[in-house]
Amino acid sequence: MSERRYVITFGCPDRTGIVARISSFLADAGGWIVEAAYHTDPDTGWFFTRQEVRADSLPYDVDQLRARFGEVASSLSAESNWRVEDTAVRRRVVILVSKDGHCLYDLLGRVASGELDVDVRAVIGNHETLADITRAHGIPFHHVPFPREDPAARSASVEGGGGRGAGHKAAAFAEVRKLVEEHDPHAIVLARFMQILPPELCAAWAGRAINIHHSFLPSFIGARPYHQAHRRGVKLIGATCHYVTADLDAGPIIEQDVIRVDHGDTVPDLVRKGRDIEKITLARGLRWHLEDRVLVHGNRTVVF
Amino acid sequence: MSERRYVITFGCPDRTGIVARISSFLADAGGWIVEAAYHTDPDTGWFFTRQEVRADSLPYDVDQLRARFGEVASSLSAESNWRVEDTAVRRRVVILVSKDGHCLYDLLGRVASGELDVDVRAVIGNHETLADITRAHGIPFHHVPFPREDPAARSASVEGGGGRGAGHKAAAFAEVRKLVEEHDPHAIVLARFMQILPPELCAAWAGRAINIHHSFLPSFIGARPYHQAHRRGVKLIGATCHYVTADLDAGPIIEQDVIRVDHGDTVPDLVRKGRDIEKITLARGLRWHLEDRVLVHGNRTVVF
Amino acid sequence: MSERRYVITFGCPDRTGIVARISSFLADAGGWIVEAAYHTDPDTGWFFTRQEVRADSLPYDVDQLRARFGEVASSLSAESNWRVEDTAVRRRVVILVSKDGHCLYDLLGRVASGELDVDVRAVIGNHETLADITRAHGIPFHHVPFPREDPAARSASVEGGGGRGAGHKAAAFAEVRKLVEEHDPHAIVLARFMQILPPELCAAWAGRAINIHHSFLPSFIGARPYHQAHRRGVKLIGATCHYVTADLDAGPIIEQDVIRVDHGDTVPDLVRKGRDIEKITLARGLRWHLEDRVLVHGNRTVVF
Amino acid sequence: MSERRYVITFGCPDRTGIVARISSFLADAGGWIVEAAYHTDPDTGWFFTRQEVRADSLPYDVDQLRARFGEVASSLSAESNWRVEDTAVRRRVVILVSKDGHCLYDLLGRVASGELDVDVRAVIGNHETLADITRAHGIPFHHVPFPREDPAARSASVEGGGGRGAGHKAAAFAEVRKLVEEHDPHAIVLARFMQILPPELCAAWAGRAINIHHSFLPSFIGARPYHQAHRRGVKLIGATCHYVTADLDAGPIIEQDVIRVDHGDTVPDLVRKGRDIEKITLARGLRWHLEDRVLVHGNRTVVF
Repeated sequence: MSERRYVITFGCPDRTGIVARISSFLADAGGWIVEAAYHTDPDTGWFFTRQEVRADSLPYDVDQLRARFGEVASSLSAESNWRVEDTAVRRRVVILVSKDGHCLYDLLGRVASGELDVDVRAVIGNHETLADITRAHGIPFHHVPFPREDPAARSASVEGGGGRGAGHKAAAFAEVRKLVEEHDPHAIVLARFMQILPPELCAAWAGRAINIHHSFLPSFIGARPYHQAHRRGVKLIGATCHYVTADLDAGPIIEQDVIRVDHGDTVPDLVRKGRDIEKITLARGLRWHLEDRVLVHGNRTVVF
Repeated sequence: MSERRYVITFGCPDRTGIVARISSFLADAGGWIVEAAYHTDPDTGWFFTRQEVRADSLPYDVDQLRARFGEVASSLSAESNWRVEDTAVRRRVVILVSKDGHCLYDLLGRVASGELDVDVRAVIGNHETLADITRAHGIPFHHVPFPREDPAARSASVEGGGGRGAGHKAAAFAEVRKLVEEHDPHAIVLARFMQILPPELCAAWAGRAINIHHSFLPSFIGARPYHQAHRRGVKLIGATCHYVTADLDAGPIIEQDVIRVDHGDTVPDLVRKGRDIEKITLARGLRWHLEDRVLVHGNRTVVF
Repeated sequence: MSERRYVITFGCPDRTGIVARISSFLADAGGWIVEAAYHTDPDTGWFFTRQEVRADSLPYDVDQLRARFGEVASSLSAESNWRVEDTAVRRRVVILVSKDGHCLYDLLGRVASGELDVDVRAVIGNHETLADITRAHGIPFHHVPFPREDPAARSASVEGGGGRGAGHKAAAFAEVRKLVEEHDPHAIVLARFMQILPPELCAAWAGRAINIHHSFLPSFIGARPYHQAHRRGVKLIGATCHYVTADLDAGPIIEQDVIRVDHGDTVPDLVRKGRDIEKITLARGLRWHLEDRVLVHGNRTVVF
Repeated sequence: MSERRYVITFGCPDRTGIVARISSFLADAGGWIVEAAYHTDPDTGWFFTRQEVRADSLPYDVDQLRARFGEVASSLSAESNWRVEDTAVRRRVVILVSKDGHCLYDLLGRVASGELDVDVRAVIGNHETLADITRAHGIPFHHVPFPREDPAARSASVEGGGGRGAGHKAAAFAEVRKLVEEHDPHAIVLARFMQILPPELCAAWAGRAINIHHSFLPSFIGARPYHQAHRRGVKLIGATCHYVTADLDAGPIIEQDVIRVDHGDTVPDLVRKGRDIEKITLARGLRWHLEDRVLVHGNRTVVF
């Protein structure tokens, strides 16, 4: 995928002639479309498209293309629902972790092998467990300790209230935010981060913060989903890669997968088996996000 | 599977020597074990086993085996947690349906081809839609109309209250119960029956009433799960075969499966794709139940 | 899908401006595109598209659309690699069977419920086993007996030679051909037909004869694939829906699926478990074929 | 799983009373069976079992248990088809690699996190590509260069013949063998090693050398399976974890898995998607092998 491309993603109210308008615009400029996908949602009457064009087939640089395509988008009432990206810009990623390393190991392995050609700018952990492996890959690791949750403090913080822990946590999140935002990342990956982002971070990172939840959402929202799954006696467990929103585990879903379990599996077995689908589901979702394949519409995603 | 077998299912508190006790009992009588499965649940300290023995290898008929094995079971404090079944007894099944025929068609096809060697004694429908196909298979069809649900009546009946509809519905369920119980069925299959069984029927048919719910439980309990799934934007839809209990869609799960969907799938697409996993998940669960492979323990199942 | 649509499928050597050319043609005539898919194969440099247009949005009937689109196709060097179909034409299907009924039952159930809105004109069997169920659905059943294969005759016929059996078989195939072709079917479905079509029928029905093979091709080509699978000790078994060509089990694959098995599964268990994926894989493949979603290119398919 | 256990695996010709004999032997010594599985193969009339017993429940050390159980095994004509292993012995593993790192990264990640509690004694590569990541985990890496394969030499070596390359390759394999055998490993993992083991190494490492082949065997044996799969136009690709035998890619299968692909996937896409199932299938198979869950019988495996 080293060939340079411009990627157009676009959404607008459906009407006759949208495809013709966009494709004629590209054809008139000599644009060689390498990949094109279209979708119309009959429920909302919304039209979506994603186009990959060979950069060398167009007489424009990306800014010029953006300016000219903007006119097309305007004429189709797309408002701000479109983007033009350049694959020559290496995607910047920051990863947030806690103690569990399977997702981080997996992502670093993909980056090291060149499978995932991104620039991991930093890994931030609320524990130091994963510092060594991160640094072995030549990536900076930042340790930002979070106050240990005690049950009383937790219920207080759910109430929006304070207490000592809440103040420390806010400071920790402020530190995380600072460390993240200096890289202006295309994706902030919560690779089993285990901390609930405060609403202001959800807002600041909207459409860029990607979480992996260790259940087949909307089942087993919140804490200890494998314990919940074991108690319910399900025959498959799942993992869900989704955009983070202020509503816990309820953001737009990018990808999900499941694996079969049976009565012989204890909670630790579920945890172990689940890791494999967590890491793979996260990697798939992240790749699609970074390739500009995911268009969010309300609480649903179109994945081209 | 025409070879006659006795099937022992058994559960008791775990301790040393259970396997030896049971297997020695069988070996001493010359019992040829064709299939054996064991499971110990570390959380509850409960031991489970299922044994298939060639009937002709034992000097007992099934009643004698039951009497003698009862002593073994007693000595292991199994109380009533064991059964001895004879595969020569053809399993009796009654199927409850509404308008959607895919599960019924599928079951009838399996019976007609001999794959599912059971005696379908009757099909009961709250509509007549599926009368013809049932009778084409030489099986009696009973039409028991149910009052149309109107929203007011529904909320009333949820309150445990009454109203005209509730009375009619109770009468309809009484009729269904009479029609079912005259066959003393090993399984009552709710093959997309779409009516919520009243608590007294759940109790009367406990461990024998098997439902197929068109979602990956515990997601999307209750009405219109495909609509719920579409709204949430999930990337897989599921089906769950479970025992019916008074707690709606919360009974012990026998089997689940899923199928991939994407943004292009409308609700009718989900309904169509879901049918395939519904019918197959139901058929698998029913087979296991009728082969005495499912042991219920609390709200979970062991499937041997 | 009751709304009438025209379906355009199209392939040509890739170049700049194809999408613009086609979509402008449609847009200029007021065509409302309901679904559109594009694919470019980088290996062969071939471009493919499929477009669904609302019939009432165009001022043409299907013949007029065909004539006008033909000019577009010509200008893009598509030669004969395009079609315009009208969803108002109910698809005609003939099904060939032997003794195993699971695929036939499944298809008939889908037709009866309206899920598969096609016109099954006839079922032809080399045994009478499935005559009753066919006729219960109001569909004509034709019994065309085939000579029993004896090993000597078989090896002779493989040699291109003759013998008594070969002559009878040719006569039987001639009879099948006559019965099939009087319906001019859009699809001839080999629903576990178990007879190898002679080359002249493969040619006559090219692109319309659809087979379900009970293995994950290219593994286990030919006879008794479940026996082969069992001997090899595979951990998954599969089914493959493909177009029939003169090269046994080597035609373009439309769809495949698998199911997990383990050491406890005997050959009859594989046969039983395999049926579920056979019937579902066949039904999926057939639906896509009848919706003009499958474009064949060499020995591969594009499924839109 | 830190609790110490003895693991008995056992096979013998089936007869009445085997379970009773083994379980009574254990029960008489106070053995607490934590996990037990049985299987009888009706085709070969062979009986298999695997038992996990709490070490502290028995009055024997592992050698004493082995000696006493040996008498039981003898009396059941098991000959050498049984083993008694001690989970307190940490399993030794040597990994062979080439340039592709995804399987190695995955295994190292599992070891680092404690999920796979084994002792990776060495990694041996015919390229140096993976030296750094290996050493970052504190594991010795040995580089053993192999002569580049030239087509002429290859066909010669297939003939059992020689040529310059063949001699160098034999020397390289001798070096690999020495490096492997000094660790007396429980498993030699070919983690995309890309070199075909010579027959004498297959023999020396029989039942311990585990390969991951990047296809759903028996499809696409040999070189470049993803190219073969792409050419055939399959709709699923697979991976197979199997014991290495002298017959290329034909050894007993431990585990297989598949992933869906479509017409849009190029060969590099297949390679990328396939990696995820390769690494997970290998990890599963290796775990089962090291937990003594895999019993080989002829060319098939029983996986308990």
